[in-house]
Parts: sequence; C-alpha cells; structure tokens
Amino acid sequence: MAQLAARGLSGLPEVAAGADLCALIAGALEAEGLTRALLDGQIVAIAHKVVSKAEGAVVDLRNVVPSARALGIASEQHKDPRAVQVVLDQSAEILREANGVLICRTHHGFVCANAGVDASNSADNEKLIVLPRDPDASARSIRRRLRELTGAEVGVLISDSFGRAWRHGQCDVAIGCAGIAPLEDWRGRKDSVGMELRATWLAVADAIASLADLARAKDSREPVVIVEGLERFLTREDGPGALALLRPLDEDLFR
Amino acid sequence: MAQLAARGLSGLPEVAAGADLCALIAGALEAEGLTRALLDGQIVAIAHKVVSKAEGAVVDLRNVVPSARALGIASEQHKDPRAVQVVLDQSAEILREANGVLICRTHHGFVCANAGVDASNSADNEKLIVLPRDPDASARSIRRRLRELTGAEVGVLISDSFGRAWRHGQCDVAIGCAGIAPLEDWRGRKDSVGMELRATWLAVADAIASLADLARAKDSREPVVIVEGLERFLTREDGPGALALLRPLDEDLFR
Repeated sequence: MAQLAARGLSGLPEVAAGADLCALIAGALEAEGLTRALLDGQIVAIAHKVVSKAEGAVVDLRNVVPSARALGIASEQHKDPRAVQVVLDQSAEILREANGVLICRTHHGFVCANAGVDASNSADNEKLIVLPRDPDASARSIRRRLRELTGAEVGVLISDSFGRAWRHGQCDVAIGCAGIAPLEDWRGRKDSVGMELRATWLAVADAIASLADLARAKDSREPVVIVEGLERFLTREDGPGALALLRPLDEDLFR
Repeated sequence: MAQLAARGLSGLPEVAAGADLCALIAGALEAEGLTRALLDGQIVAIAHKVVSKAEGAVVDLRNVVPSARALGIASEQHKDPRAVQVVLDQSAEILREANGVLICRTHHGFVCANAGVDASNSADNEKLIVLPRDPDASARSIRRRLRELTGAEVGVLISDSFGRAWRHGQCDVAIGCAGIAPLEDWRGRKDSVGMELRATWLAVADAIASLADLARAKDSREPVVIVEGLERFLTREDGPGALALLRPLDEDLFR
C-alpha cells in the first residue's frame, strides 16, 4: 500500500569516536542482503547521537570544572554542577530554568532542553553526548560519503528529540540536513477549490524526523532509518540545511 | 521495505455539513478495489477540516458582529474584524498578537495561531472553518462508525497544522485521537546499554500526525491518510485522547 515507507536499519554496531559512520551504515545495509545498499531518492535519517559519537562530540565530566554560575543553577535544580557547566558551554542563552530542566538556545540557534546534552546511549556514565558542532555540515559530509560508498543520491537528515512549549512529550526535529528542502512553502498558492491557502508552510524536514522516529523502537539500537516515497522533497544541491528552520530572534515572540 | 507505511486516500468527495464522513471514507476505500476496506491495526489519520465540515463547525461571517475588542485588534493587525471575532470566540486566552497572527489558547487548551480558524478549503469566501468542538469525541465517534462499516479495529487521529514557537513552518499535530496511546513514556527505563534514558517521552500521536501530512500533497484533496506498521501504539480502549498531550497551565513556561 505504501506511498511513504520507512524502516529502521538493524545491525549497526556501537559507534566510536573517529568511526567511519557511513561505512558502518553501508555495511549494515549490505548485511540485509539487498541488491543495492541504497537507492536514489531515499532519505537516510540519523539520530544525532551516533553522529556526535563518530565526531567525538562527547564531553568527559571528569575534565569539567563548574563555574560559580553552574554551581548556583545545579544547587537550585538538583543537578550535577559539571553537567550544568556542559549545558552552559553549549548555550548562547538560557531562556528558562524550571523542574530540573534548562531551556536553552544553543550556539547553533536551536531552542531545546539542556542544550541537547544527553547521557543516554553513552556507555560511560561520566560522558555526556553533545550536539554536533555543525549538524548541517555533518549532513553534507555524510551525504557525500554515502554517495562515494553506494553510488546513490540520497537525502540525509540528522535529528534530535525536542520538547515543545505547550505540549507534553517530544517529537524528533531536524538539526541538520542535506539534499532535502527543509520547508515547503504554499503560502499565497491556491488550493484545489481555488481558495488561497493561508499559513501553509510545511516544516518538511521536521516531519521527516518525526516519522523516522516512529520507525524505530527506542531501545533497539536503530539510530538509522531509511525513508522512501518523499522524492518530491529531495534536491540535487545540498541546500540551506536545517538552519533554515530556525525562527530569527527578532521574530521570536516567546523568549 | 516497509515497517511503517502510509498513503493518502484519493477519491473522497467534498464533505458537506451533516455528511456521514465515515461512509464517504469507506466508499473511497472500496473504490480502490481492495478486498477489505480497512484492516485491524491500521490508523486512519484525518485532517480536521473535513471533520469540522461534517460537524458543521463552520461560521458564516455574514452573521458575525465584531466586538469593540475585535475591531481594535483588526485595526492593529489589518484583518477582517469579523474574522478576529471568530478567533476570539474560539479562544480562552490570547497569548500574543504580532505580524497579523494571534497566538491563542483555544477553549480546548490548544496553543496555536488564530485559534485554528481557517478559510482554506472552504468553497465560500465568507465561511470560516473552526476546530471541532470536542475533537477527541469526534475521533471516538469516527472510530466506532468505521468499526460498524468495515468491521476493522483501527486507531483514529484528527490533525491540524500548528506553527512552533522557535521554528519556521508548521507540523501537523493530533487534536483528537481514539484507540491510540498518545504518549509513550520511556522516562526512567534503561536503554540497550543499560543507561537510564533521560527525558524520553515520545509524543506518538503528534508524530503520526506529522507523518500523515507527508503522505498527501496539500492541493490534492487527500484529507484522509491510512497508516500501517504502528500496531504497537494502538489500544483496545479509546484511551485518553489528544487532550493528554496538553501541558497544564501551571507547567507552562511560555505564556
């Protein structure tokens, strides 16, 4: 029945700093026994943690000396002051502090809890995974390398799970992408009955990230999801990346 | 390749007030020539506009008399004062006014632009479509009726496109659901390497809404999308509905 289809890639080994993530992905795809590892027009959606690990975007708490500010926040929020320091280091601005969570604007411009710093899936309790330094550059690099290894022209998306201001739970959003139009703009166009469509500006890359997250089980080590049926959003060029999804500060009504 | 698959349902006719939406859906499914219209475990995701239309949740601007407040906002924001009045009538609170948009908390508790009031896809310029009065009740009713008509135990989700505080573009979210667990809570559980997963609380129903929106083209009149491969999120009972996704006011950091 599928027009749109997605599946988690199983068999990806633990990713270490310096690993050739794309070679690991290509190897896991080959192990599935398909004729071709990847097909033109597919999207490879990757949970950022494995990208961060491969890039060494990991901080060892044993090397972190908390500032006075980190000590203050940690005391109020009952957190490890070294972990708070890591969050501060990743942040351009702290928007809110509450309930053990810091709502941060990261240096990239992402607004999210704890600046995207995360302990989960790290094999070492004293190591925190941070966001890739430039996730759009990571996506472009992965796209190029996957093309080298498999010959396929795919879109690449790197995601993280973000909470939302007014809704419970988290949805995955795109923090980096290449070869994907991150937004589809229908504003001003007419719909099928000739009415002007108002405020119709689809956050394509974020919707793909959310969809990919549904294609894996959280505990099953499937950071990579292959999506097909979205060829219409793919671009030959790498494109503007996920930074195009960020609302500029001067349009931000909720600082 | 699909573990997760979705397709837009074509052939749904224009929906009028009082229409039996489920009979129209079942008819469009039958016209596809499949052996069975719906299968147990599928999800029927429906853009709210056709639900609103069937329920008569449509306001004729010719019957609206704007209040002094509506006239004031309309003048500032360069909008039709009658349309502003409709937005105010749908709202419990106006959070922000800027750039021709009112960010509202609806009577249901949804925070969104213009209280979800929309002109698009209405055949009459003077008619505005508002959100269903109780979208979870609508979803329960649709689920029951689809079971009567097709014999299938499906999940039902009603969606709208919401903007986001800090990101451009819109993603579909669930405003109503039945037979679907709206949230999957992994907080406190261990991941595959034994680390406690932190802040892992997946907004399942919203992710399904986003995925469904990708399975249709905006101008192709496919308000209904059939999703399969998500049986693990389906429930025998109708469940708490999409209201469970709303962050309570006393946890809202961004009023």
